[in-house]
Amino acid sequence: MRSHYCGQLNETLVDQDVTLCGWVHRRRDHGGVIFLDMRDREGVAQVVVDPDTADAFAEADRARSEYVLQIKGRVRPRPEGTTNANMPTGMIEVLAFEVNVLNTAATPPFQLDEHGKVGEETRLKYRYVDLRRPEMIDRLRLRSRITHSVRAYLEKNDFLDIETPILTRATPEGARDYLVPSRTHAGQFFALPQSPQLFKQLLMVSGFDRYYQIAKCFRDEDLRADRQPEFTQIDLEASFVEERDIMGLTEEMIRQLFADVLDVTLPDFPQMTYADAMRRFGSDKPDLRIPLELVDVDDLLGDVDFKVFSGPANDENGRVAALRVPQGARLTRKEIDEYTRFVGIYGAKGLAYIKVNDRSQGLEGLQSPIVKFMGSVVEQVLDRVGAEDGDIVFFGADNARVVSEAIGALRVKLGEDLDLYTQEWAPLWVIDFPMFEADGNGRLSALHHPFTAPSCSPEALKANPEQALSRAYDMVLNGTELGGGSIRIHDQAMQQTVFEVLGIHDDEAREKFGFLLDALQYGAPPHGGLAFGLDRLVMLMTGGRTIRDVIAFPKTQSAACMMTDAPGEVSPEQLKELNIRLRAKAAAAE
Amino acid sequence: MRSHYCGQLNETLVDQDVTLCGWVHRRRDHGGVIFLDMRDREGVAQVVVDPDTADAFAEADRARSEYVLQIKGRVRPRPEGTTNANMPTGMIEVLAFEVNVLNTAATPPFQLDEHGKVGEETRLKYRYVDLRRPEMIDRLRLRSRITHSVRAYLEKNDFLDIETPILTRATPEGARDYLVPSRTHAGQFFALPQSPQLFKQLLMVSGFDRYYQIAKCFRDEDLRADRQPEFTQIDLEASFVEERDIMGLTEEMIRQLFADVLDVTLPDFPQMTYADAMRRFGSDKPDLRIPLELVDVDDLLGDVDFKVFSGPANDENGRVAALRVPQGARLTRKEIDEYTRFVGIYGAKGLAYIKVNDRSQGLEGLQSPIVKFMGSVVEQVLDRVGAEDGDIVFFGADNARVVSEAIGALRVKLGEDLDLYTQEWAPLWVIDFPMFEADGNGRLSALHHPFTAPSCSPEALKANPEQALSRAYDMVLNGTELGGGSIRIHDQAMQQTVFEVLGIHDDEAREKFGFLLDALQYGAPPHGGLAFGLDRLVMLMTGGRTIRDVIAFPKTQSAACMMTDAPGEVSPEQLKELNIRLRAKAAAAE
Repeated sequence: MRSHYCGQLNETLVDQDVTLCGWVHRRRDHGGVIFLDMRDREGVAQVVVDPDTADAFAEADRARSEYVLQIKGRVRPRPEGTTNANMPTGMIEVLAFEVNVLNTAATPPFQLDEHGKVGEETRLKYRYVDLRRPEMIDRLRLRSRITHSVRAYLEKNDFLDIETPILTRATPEGARDYLVPSRTHAGQFFALPQSPQLFKQLLMVSGFDRYYQIAKCFRDEDLRADRQPEFTQIDLEASFVEERDIMGLTEEMIRQLFADVLDVTLPDFPQMTYADAMRRFGSDKPDLRIPLELVDVDDLLGDVDFKVFSGPANDENGRVAALRVPQGARLTRKEIDEYTRFVGIYGAKGLAYIKVNDRSQGLEGLQSPIVKFMGSVVEQVLDRVGAEDGDIVFFGADNARVVSEAIGALRVKLGEDLDLYTQEWAPLWVIDFPMFEADGNGRLSALHHPFTAPSCSPEALKANPEQALSRAYDMVLNGTELGGGSIRIHDQAMQQTVFEVLGIHDDEAREKFGFLLDALQYGAPPHGGLAFGLDRLVMLMTGGRTIRDVIAFPKTQSAACMMTDAPGEVSPEQLKELNIRLRAKAAAAE
Repeated sequence: MRSHYCGQLNETLVDQDVTLCGWVHRRRDHGGVIFLDMRDREGVAQVVVDPDTADAFAEADRARSEYVLQIKGRVRPRPEGTTNANMPTGMIEVLAFEVNVLNTAATPPFQLDEHGKVGEETRLKYRYVDLRRPEMIDRLRLRSRITHSVRAYLEKNDFLDIETPILTRATPEGARDYLVPSRTHAGQFFALPQSPQLFKQLLMVSGFDRYYQIAKCFRDEDLRADRQPEFTQIDLEASFVEERDIMGLTEEMIRQLFADVLDVTLPDFPQMTYADAMRRFGSDKPDLRIPLELVDVDDLLGDVDFKVFSGPANDENGRVAALRVPQGARLTRKEIDEYTRFVGIYGAKGLAYIKVNDRSQGLEGLQSPIVKFMGSVVEQVLDRVGAEDGDIVFFGADNARVVSEAIGALRVKLGEDLDLYTQEWAPLWVIDFPMFEADGNGRLSALHHPFTAPSCSPEALKANPEQALSRAYDMVLNGTELGGGSIRIHDQAMQQTVFEVLGIHDDEAREKFGFLLDALQYGAPPHGGLAFGLDRLVMLMTGGRTIRDVIAFPKTQSAACMMTDAPGEVSPEQLKELNIRLRAKAAAAE
């Protein structure tokens, strides 16, 4: 029905007849002539309809915004003075000799170029209109190119694309599962997978050697700012590998992806231990575009007459860290108050600071509510952080977790607010994670998941679990965790030790993961892998602000689809077939 | 950890050192030497461990079937007389100088080469062992190559890979939905999609122009022989197209796929109307490899003194059809009885036949329980079907549906039993389907789905719905429907007319498809598409017997996973969070 996309027209087609199909992006009537900006996936082209071609003119005259038209016409150069260098098709126009209205359109719920004026709920309700915006089409097109590049790379490297089930058994990732009642097994439920973790490990036991899948995953969590109930992973696993194999392969994959799709050459991926990342950046996913670092000053502040500092400095679970912000002395009182509130979100009880106006004047040259308590130690602190005139130095002092989180977050916020970025892309690997983290009651949970191999023996793990490191690795880009993985446990005894340390007793392990434990005893190869969050990767690469910008039909924060009105009610007959009924409260709310 | 796959070794590597990783496929001890057949994804290689290399020998001596080993050794030609031309690696062997047991293995639940001796349930329970069989690995590898070829073709043709939601609203395909209770919206449910149909149409309204997805779909049906609760479609849709565009594009896709993956050049795809297919083959997915056709003889048999024939022949809903089987006169009485029982499955009350022994002898030369009732018409019937000496002619006489189904199925069964196939691959298109089919009470339902465009005006559709044809098309290969699609309705008035004819009143249409009806009024382009059943396509291409052979982790016929034991029980707390409870019966069954 067409010969060219609108957006593909250019000067090489002058004097050729073309057939276009698309939407009326804009209509203008000028000097008795109708100008139609015709839009399709590839762009916009200007069509001119002259009253001389009476039939075409009459049909064009019916056209309103978002009507669907077929245009037959001849490409010609735009008259001098009317060309538009900002538009790929801006040097030419199409003189129509035939116009067919293929479909009419009611006035859209919002104009495409005024989408900013309507709330996101309206845009999600009329998502099919919102998706007409060129930037939305471009983002999803880039998403398609990204998955294409990833697949090409992995297939070239002998990875097989293998589908794993969506209707499966509760998985052990820790978040809440979505459940699906079974009609044929009364009272029983499938779970939607939080990841294909166990299945990909079983594929390794089967000998598939290299597996990948771009896989839908599901978590029924309370949605924080940028989560979706269903999301997509680039999931891969390989056998007979060590950390460096998986890290090397996936680093090369991401490097090639950026080159293919964005024409960007990524810098080197430094490797940083979890301990270093927390110490220097207060985060296990540091944003290395920001040239600020946390500096520990516990050893200097143990004896100062200021409990806020000396308390944590003398507590083995405490931490006192300083963050120097070059040229930060120009921050106003109001801005500092804002940052104080900001670190409060992370549990910090205050935000001490020193403005360094003129170091040559000693204490006189400093502006700070706290230097009076610090005495001569101030100079040592300022020396250690390398403070220069015009800087500000912030301090966090509390238990180590609060300090790292609060000052780590402050570091990122300052980087953004003051536009301190030194590079566009800053990737790295974080390695040597602890195996476990303890909650307030000393109960351990797996930092990654319980199938992650420790880097020590079962005996050492049992003896000192909180000190044990894992063979996990996370790829981080610009402060976002792009993906994480690990070498897995392939030894049944080690797997049982980990369950033991986690307080998962034998019956429970057998009940939940019996098939994995079985599989491990029938000849499991050493194996490991990684999973990337595709939505976040695409968001970073396309400059989207939320992952909703790179998902065709996303859900709201209350896990609903505004467009289809899902979830919805179902009939009593359906529930009966599924052997379930609503609880009284839910039934009453109907 | 390795330098080569086992299956990749060959004579070019003689005298080179290699490192292999894999499973002990077989171990033989012979003349004081240990022979290990080492298996990995790519094949099997013979490893020789000599007692001279004491450490390697001691380690190899521990090895049992399915142990996981790393072998370092040197490739050498096999000694004369011990080569194996049937094995890709059969000209060489590896003399080991280092053997490392990477993991032990318990005796597997069944030997790989004895999988036929255990029931399918055992194989599904230990699927990770079953998948080690080379033919299973090969099938899933071919599946990966098939999706690769399909993606490459569609992306070359500007189709964008776009994901649509899994957690969505009940879809209109007619089968039962899987439901997912919502935690955040008490008493409400998501449905898993039976297909991305509505979403892909909305993507066309958005202007994506060409969409594809290899999409998981879900149907909670009672599983017939070869269905799965979750299955995979190659789903595509394009705008500004007509039937020939989609058919041409997808025919070329399948043609290229067969060339890429199987090195097969498919023959032409003839187009056949639904009416012709039913008349000539008794099926809307005729297997054209079989050179047998149904021939209508109603007009000849209206006056015979045999009610079984004359009844249907004179009934406008009846049909009398003959099926000539060349050289079929050799079928025994017992075989014919079997076929009579077989057509009974499809509702046929008997199976009349004529064995043509010697046409030159007239009635004397025929062997049949029915010729005596037919009189002189017999010759006309035999002439029409072209019967020759040695043939058998079967008859079906009943209402048209029973005759077509029964004799159509008989045709396929005879083709298989007598091995009548004339070609390996026989593709075709079936077109001009009826819009609707009527049930016993004259209630109409959509033969494809209610978004399929009719090939007539809304007025004609309303006036004579049962005669209306649709713009649908099915691709059929070897008697299997590979895929089906249609040009869709893009006009809101037409869509409402179809709902009206189907007896879906306005409120119901609005409630179920309101967002689609809305979308149609905001400038929907003409569009159409097609969906292929990937599992069935892979099954045909790999020679699998069931789709379970080409799915890594399939479910049983009762929709359960033997390996993970899904579905399973969930805790009362989980149910409470989801605002549901079990019905008494289900609860009692726990």
